[in-house]
Amino acid sequence: MAELKSHPKVKLFSLNSNRPLAEAISKAVGVPLSDATVEKFSDDEIKISVNESIRGDEVYIIQSVSDPVNSTLMELLIMVDAVRRASAKSINVVIPYYGYSRADRKARSREPITAKLVASFLEMDGVDRVVTLDLHADQIQGFFNIPVDHLKANTLLANYFADKHDDANSVVVSPDHTGVSRARKFAELLDAPIAIIDNRSPEDATTVPESVIGSVTGKQAIIVDDMIDTAFKLTIAAETLKKAGATDVYAVATHAVFSGNAQERLQASAIKKVIVTDSINIAQADQFEKLEVVSVGDLFGEAITLIHNQQSVGKLFGR
Amino acid sequence: MAELKSHPKVKLFSLNSNRPLAEAISKAVGVPLSDATVEKFSDDEIKISVNESIRGDEVYIIQSVSDPVNSTLMELLIMVDAVRRASAKSINVVIPYYGYSRADRKARSREPITAKLVASFLEMDGVDRVVTLDLHADQIQGFFNIPVDHLKANTLLANYFADKHDDANSVVVSPDHTGVSRARKFAELLDAPIAIIDNRSPEDATTVPESVIGSVTGKQAIIVDDMIDTAFKLTIAAETLKKAGATDVYAVATHAVFSGNAQERLQASAIKKVIVTDSINIAQADQFEKLEVVSVGDLFGEAITLIHNQQSVGKLFGR
Amino acid sequence: MAELKSHPKVKLFSLNSNRPLAEAISKAVGVPLSDATVEKFSDDEIKISVNESIRGDEVYIIQSVSDPVNSTLMELLIMVDAVRRASAKSINVVIPYYGYSRADRKARSREPITAKLVASFLEMDGVDRVVTLDLHADQIQGFFNIPVDHLKANTLLANYFADKHDDANSVVVSPDHTGVSRARKFAELLDAPIAIIDNRSPEDATTVPESVIGSVTGKQAIIVDDMIDTAFKLTIAAETLKKAGATDVYAVATHAVFSGNAQERLQASAIKKVIVTDSINIAQADQFEKLEVVSVGDLFGEAITLIHNQQSVGKLFGR
Amino acid sequence: MAELKSHPKVKLFSLNSNRPLAEAISKAVGVPLSDATVEKFSDDEIKISVNESIRGDEVYIIQSVSDPVNSTLMELLIMVDAVRRASAKSINVVIPYYGYSRADRKARSREPITAKLVASFLEMDGVDRVVTLDLHADQIQGFFNIPVDHLKANTLLANYFADKHDDANSVVVSPDHTGVSRARKFAELLDAPIAIIDNRSPEDATTVPESVIGSVTGKQAIIVDDMIDTAFKLTIAAETLKKAGATDVYAVATHAVFSGNAQERLQASAIKKVIVTDSINIAQADQFEKLEVVSVGDLFGEAITLIHNQQSVGKLFGR
Amino acid sequence: MAELKSHPKVKLFSLNSNRPLAEAISKAVGVPLSDATVEKFSDDEIKISVNESIRGDEVYIIQSVSDPVNSTLMELLIMVDAVRRASAKSINVVIPYYGYSRADRKARSREPITAKLVASFLEMDGVDRVVTLDLHADQIQGFFNIPVDHLKANTLLANYFADKHDDANSVVVSPDHTGVSRARKFAELLDAPIAIIDNRSPEDATTVPESVIGSVTGKQAIIVDDMIDTAFKLTIAAETLKKAGATDVYAVATHAVFSGNAQERLQASAIKKVIVTDSINIAQADQFEKLEVVSVGDLFGEAITLIHNQQSVGKLFGR
Amino acid sequence: MAELKSHPKVKLFSLNSNRPLAEAISKAVGVPLSDATVEKFSDDEIKISVNESIRGDEVYIIQSVSDPVNSTLMELLIMVDAVRRASAKSINVVIPYYGYSRADRKARSREPITAKLVASFLEMDGVDRVVTLDLHADQIQGFFNIPVDHLKANTLLANYFADKHDDANSVVVSPDHTGVSRARKFAELLDAPIAIIDNRSPEDATTVPESVIGSVTGKQAIIVDDMIDTAFKLTIAAETLKKAGATDVYAVATHAVFSGNAQERLQASAIKKVIVTDSINIAQADQFEKLEVVSVGDLFGEAITLIHNQQSVGKLFGR
Repeated sequence: MAELKSHPKVKLFSLNSNRPLAEAISKAVGVPLSDATVEKFSDDEIKISVNESIRGDEVYIIQSVSDPVNSTLMELLIMVDAVRRASAKSINVVIPYYGYSRADRKARSREPITAKLVASFLEMDGVDRVVTLDLHADQIQGFFNIPVDHLKANTLLANYFADKHDDANSVVVSPDHTGVSRARKFAELLDAPIAIIDNRSPEDATTVPESVIGSVTGKQAIIVDDMIDTAFKLTIAAETLKKAGATDVYAVATHAVFSGNAQERLQASAIKKVIVTDSINIAQADQFEKLEVVSVGDLFGEAITLIHNQQSVGKLFGR
Repeated sequence: MAELKSHPKVKLFSLNSNRPLAEAISKAVGVPLSDATVEKFSDDEIKISVNESIRGDEVYIIQSVSDPVNSTLMELLIMVDAVRRASAKSINVVIPYYGYSRADRKARSREPITAKLVASFLEMDGVDRVVTLDLHADQIQGFFNIPVDHLKANTLLANYFADKHDDANSVVVSPDHTGVSRARKFAELLDAPIAIIDNRSPEDATTVPESVIGSVTGKQAIIVDDMIDTAFKLTIAAETLKKAGATDVYAVATHAVFSGNAQERLQASAIKKVIVTDSINIAQADQFEKLEVVSVGDLFGEAITLIHNQQSVGKLFGR
Repeated sequence: MAELKSHPKVKLFSLNSNRPLAEAISKAVGVPLSDATVEKFSDDEIKISVNESIRGDEVYIIQSVSDPVNSTLMELLIMVDAVRRASAKSINVVIPYYGYSRADRKARSREPITAKLVASFLEMDGVDRVVTLDLHADQIQGFFNIPVDHLKANTLLANYFADKHDDANSVVVSPDHTGVSRARKFAELLDAPIAIIDNRSPEDATTVPESVIGSVTGKQAIIVDDMIDTAFKLTIAAETLKKAGATDVYAVATHAVFSGNAQERLQASAIKKVIVTDSINIAQADQFEKLEVVSVGDLFGEAITLIHNQQSVGKLFGR
Repeated sequence: MAELKSHPKVKLFSLNSNRPLAEAISKAVGVPLSDATVEKFSDDEIKISVNESIRGDEVYIIQSVSDPVNSTLMELLIMVDAVRRASAKSINVVIPYYGYSRADRKARSREPITAKLVASFLEMDGVDRVVTLDLHADQIQGFFNIPVDHLKANTLLANYFADKHDDANSVVVSPDHTGVSRARKFAELLDAPIAIIDNRSPEDATTVPESVIGSVTGKQAIIVDDMIDTAFKLTIAAETLKKAGATDVYAVATHAVFSGNAQERLQASAIKKVIVTDSINIAQADQFEKLEVVSVGDLFGEAITLIHNQQSVGKLFGR
Repeated sequence: MAELKSHPKVKLFSLNSNRPLAEAISKAVGVPLSDATVEKFSDDEIKISVNESIRGDEVYIIQSVSDPVNSTLMELLIMVDAVRRASAKSINVVIPYYGYSRADRKARSREPITAKLVASFLEMDGVDRVVTLDLHADQIQGFFNIPVDHLKANTLLANYFADKHDDANSVVVSPDHTGVSRARKFAELLDAPIAIIDNRSPEDATTVPESVIGSVTGKQAIIVDDMIDTAFKLTIAAETLKKAGATDVYAVATHAVFSGNAQERLQASAIKKVIVTDSINIAQADQFEKLEVVSVGDLFGEAITLIHNQQSVGKLFGR
Repeated sequence: MAELKSHPKVKLFSLNSNRPLAEAISKAVGVPLSDATVEKFSDDEIKISVNESIRGDEVYIIQSVSDPVNSTLMELLIMVDAVRRASAKSINVVIPYYGYSRADRKARSREPITAKLVASFLEMDGVDRVVTLDLHADQIQGFFNIPVDHLKANTLLANYFADKHDDANSVVVSPDHTGVSRARKFAELLDAPIAIIDNRSPEDATTVPESVIGSVTGKQAIIVDDMIDTAFKLTIAAETLKKAGATDVYAVATHAVFSGNAQERLQASAIKKVIVTDSINIAQADQFEKLEVVSVGDLFGEAITLIHNQQSVGKLFGR
């Protein structure tokens, strides 16, 4: 009979929503992606099998909970079940984009708080740690009892902007009332003042005229947000800023949700450049001329390396 | 200030997967469907709001977890979250078809047991009771700690068959090795003998020749199963039975999963009639000549009435 | 032996942090406060005994988690334990001020999220429902799985302001970057524009010069916040607004935490009037000339009546 | 279809360990015992079926966890599972004798705390309330989070003693160091002094000589304990008391565990009368001349009536 | 003071139900059995003490939950409590025979699902992993959230049969409707066809005549089942097969429950040889001439070695 | 990118209640105290930040839950939250004095069991192990499911007494009915007899005359208790003993709660010397002439070393 021994290892798995980013992370960590089959039956049921032993291993599962969010979420949850039953030592889920993060409170009577539900599902499924990026609200960390390593892309994005674009005479703009702190932090990285788009009926962003609080006249405006979804709010804000005297308008956001025909809307808008990360995979067909993509592969790779080495990840938590 | 009083009520909600059945259940119970908005954002995120007070009410949520199963499941789970936070007195979920029920065990190393995961999610979401129909395996009841009222359609289907078709000189056939008990119970309702399709490599139903155990020569064969998915297994079984001398072949099943081009395959097969229930909604376009549908609306309606009245539901648990 | 019968009742208990508000609530509901002894041993250990039977009753425990927060919180948690073990039918905690609500996220590495910890303690202690007022962040509702009836005082405060003070030519001011949504909602109630205090180093509110974004010149400024603690941030904001040309400055907030010598600071400040609610009890000695207090007794009383009557509380959830 | 209605009821079930007491309780409550079949397969597996509907009912299950404790405990736990899955409204377990109660702490390294394990099993099985009698240690109540109605038999036993026996010139004796409080409370009911048996090596009660602390000379000694198991400790204590000058020796205890040949030992001992309750069933064959049994049927019956009627049970909690 | 160091170790413990198998496993692993005292008090209470330090150790507890199942189960549960409180690093329970496995679903109204209850008890007791053999239903794995290493004995038994007995011209027979898959897999290992015993009233195996589906005439029949309990079903099946023309009849099963007078019945039956494993200990007195026992000691030993070495156990999961 | 490696470490933290003892423990273990900031806001809210990485470390948090108990308890609970979220490998809490330990049972109707509540909070907060000293009742161990290393100071205190004071002709006295076992164990260490203070109305220790059971005449009395709180009970007991003929009276206790003016009372009493440990910090100003303090620093230091080294701690569990 074989001798008693022991050999913990690091294993990285990519599910189906953002394989290019998973490959970038794998390269940054220096550990190849492990082998798992993740398929769908014709009625949409997901079938997973992990094709190599992970017994006693430290497992990282990389999956953005992006469109179609219900399927990508279930892929993640089912994979965790398989990995837990297969005797992994620890289960770390890497969620570059945390879907349903906007459903983080009851805005009206009898609404769900789906962002909490997702957190509860991950915890009861046996996840040991979440590594994620730019949550819609910092309080979502508190939806978890397990450690959440909450990375921030603002330094990366600000450095990119300063490198690639002229950032002199800029003003950083929050496109709504809830994003002012985010804009303030980004503004400090560029040493710029801030302004706020003041939409009185935030429920109906498509029709109501907006005003700007703060001075943008003669300045280059950089709208900062955590995500771009339909791009309605953003493109209207750009027009408002132009009317208010802004010279150029840039849009900077971490998550490129890009639903509906956001891409066409952005390309046709008053915005000069749209700068996002690859936290959500953007198919080649969905890219457009004004789009610039900054990779968070190295950021997540460094986080995983520090976590495994049991060193502080704090320096990646941004401002 | 208003006087202190109290008024518990029964509320039925339908989600999006099988509204016709929900309406049939509503009619059987004599309680109209309550008002909730269940929509999707363009990135597939589900947005729910319950449009009437359910504080202190006994709530029944009707949803088949059918194609697309991940979305229909998430609809159900998110609705339960909304209803729980809105202070329902009790939350009863009515699941005519329990998706992922075939993922009820680890068939190979490192597989998930998704049917258990779904049960765990429902329980931790605060569900008080599950009412369901013909689970793929009876043991799935044990995946829950809460009460499961597990209805059976076999009496309904056997009565229908005896009413509508000549059941003399029949043999009831199990299409595989695991369904023999189900066939045996159905056979007793028709006072018929049984036979079994013996496929040596059950993994590959499409290519391997099958044999029949038990006598079918000169008899009318009724293949009984819990669900029809791609219909590959079923149509091959029908041919095998014909070759073995069966006069006519019928197929009876509770759940019409009908994925891929099951309908075309069934219509073109050696099967004379396909008899299913409406546990899964079959769009008009997906119906076909050989199909006969028996409604389980009254069955579920009676179950809900008995549950509310705190009377035994045992008579609906079938054989 | 006595006959079998049954008699559910509503019972209200006040703990020690805000007995005047509890009495106002009791009066509004029309149910007297029940009898419990809540004492401290000389080493600060809390000793509770409930002096009347609550078996089968619907119990409401009223306690603001205010200074000294650790003792008031433990009073609440220990009372819930006593009430649960004494066979209450349901336990509803009424928390007019939710202490530790600012510790709702990890602002830096290795910090706790105490607002979540408090929620977890309440839930595992067996609380069935939380009724609270103006949480520091709406997301704190999501720290709970049980129903949270989250009341809002903004309509009450805006109506009071419009009644008692001239609200023409006003601007509503957020004293920091995170409160802009709160200011926006209050402004809509008064049909006023908004402005924002822009403090570049929010960590050090006492020394860094601030600027105002938005126009306040010649207008009456109403600073709106959820709570007033040391009043440093508020009194500096008032000076900034005066320098920026505001005619008068009012301060409106729900929770009068008033720690340190906040009262002296406010009385000596550029602020004309400070308007708060009685969610936290303000001792007679701690009141001051500029202070105006609006009671939330009727608001909570109506909430409890609606909850007991199983009617929608939505109309009290504010904007 | 039947009309919607509702009819909660009280149901009492007896399992197999103490049917005579269950019948006495049933008579006291005025509710007949409900019908359940509780059998054993030949390999000792317990098979339970509840033979009448309990949907929506308030269920009381009566079972002493007495010899054979593992089987009686499993009977109780399995019955609770059946009752929970059968949709009872509430599950109350009535445990006149709580087996394993002496395993309430780690007396030495690497021992279990089985009394806590039993409590955890009952809680996770879905029990809503425990009604029990004279726990070996009061702290066992704290092993539960659910309400425990902890009845005491000392008033009943003291009244019985004063009625049937001359209690003048008595001394109440604790047979060991841990029972002094119990003896003290019993002594107060009889207005008597106390004494203590001081056994220096409590581990080996059979061989080591004991001494008495306190005066017993010329007095009638009443040894009070919570249970009599092998009766070794008790019969030696009786001899010690006789040698120390006691005139007569009585033994009073709630639980007649009577294991080994306790009955012979007691009958042959220096003890005049042994007074116990029927919390544990004593077969006719196991009764003996010196034994007197006081029934706790009315005590439990009154408790159940008060619980159902939602009235205070406190008066039955004894001294 | 001693230097800080660390030394994880593997410790194997045997409880009382199957010490010979535990010794065989110990020998296969190459690690001696550790020292624990597991005794009973005279009222059947179990007393356990672990006699050596297990702090930080990887502990394996070996116990078949066989007759008397309630005591053997409680032994296991109490031992886990002791081991958990004694600071083991991980707790692995090795359950060669999982008692109560037939109570895996509600066959009728108001029945318990005891197999799930046992799983829940083990999980809440702090077990980290279950290693077991030939569960009555594969779905029982899903009763657990922790990893279950589910070994299969069919390869071992088929190899043994082929070695010791002539397997030419055989037919593998399922003795009932639910075991057909098991028979099919065994038949593939011997390259034989299958047949099924068709008992129309499975509830009453002792009186109703049975028929055989499939051809057995002139063949040697090998009845395959997971366990042999009273042997009623098996011995009647053997007679049925003989009448149907089978030449010889063998019985092969993993678990020798042998309750009632199963041994006499088997020895007197039409069966030629009964082949079982030692998953349940068979006392010398209970062995009989026709019995052949195959040891699973090496199988479990290899599983434990692979688990400790963090290597895949998949190859022992059988077909 | 950095190489993958791993480096678990031991980290000790002291909170604010007993830093001198924490320093003694740190010295005994040979590991310096780690850096954390534990402050209070002016409304008593506790603010904690851990100032060095503890990722993957084995963390020990040292905190006596002593006056003010609510704040010291919350400090501990909040620190555990911070440490858990900061990815510690294991969290060990060292609680030299377990506050609220006297609230270990319901003494009357509708009382809480706060000692259990504290245990539940620690467990749900993610604590892996508790190391504590002389719990008020051994059963409190059973309030936890996690390992509790329960150290005993009696050997330390008895050795100290025998070293520093003449222990010939002594009698060990229990000051009440519940402490007799504790006195008996201490007496065996000094080879002395025991006596008991018999107070008939233990509720009102200040006014009712007491008697002594057992002989103390002409002997030196050593009153042994687990804690000294107000010292009322103790100083009255001393007088009673003097009247009963004791020559000298000593008081020995583990925990110096010393609330109210216990120190003055003790100094002015009939007691010759008061011997306690430093489990609770005694400020210089609170020390008095008759007081002697024995440090438990080495005891806890040795426990931590053994725990880390995964060696048995049993030898520190006392008698």
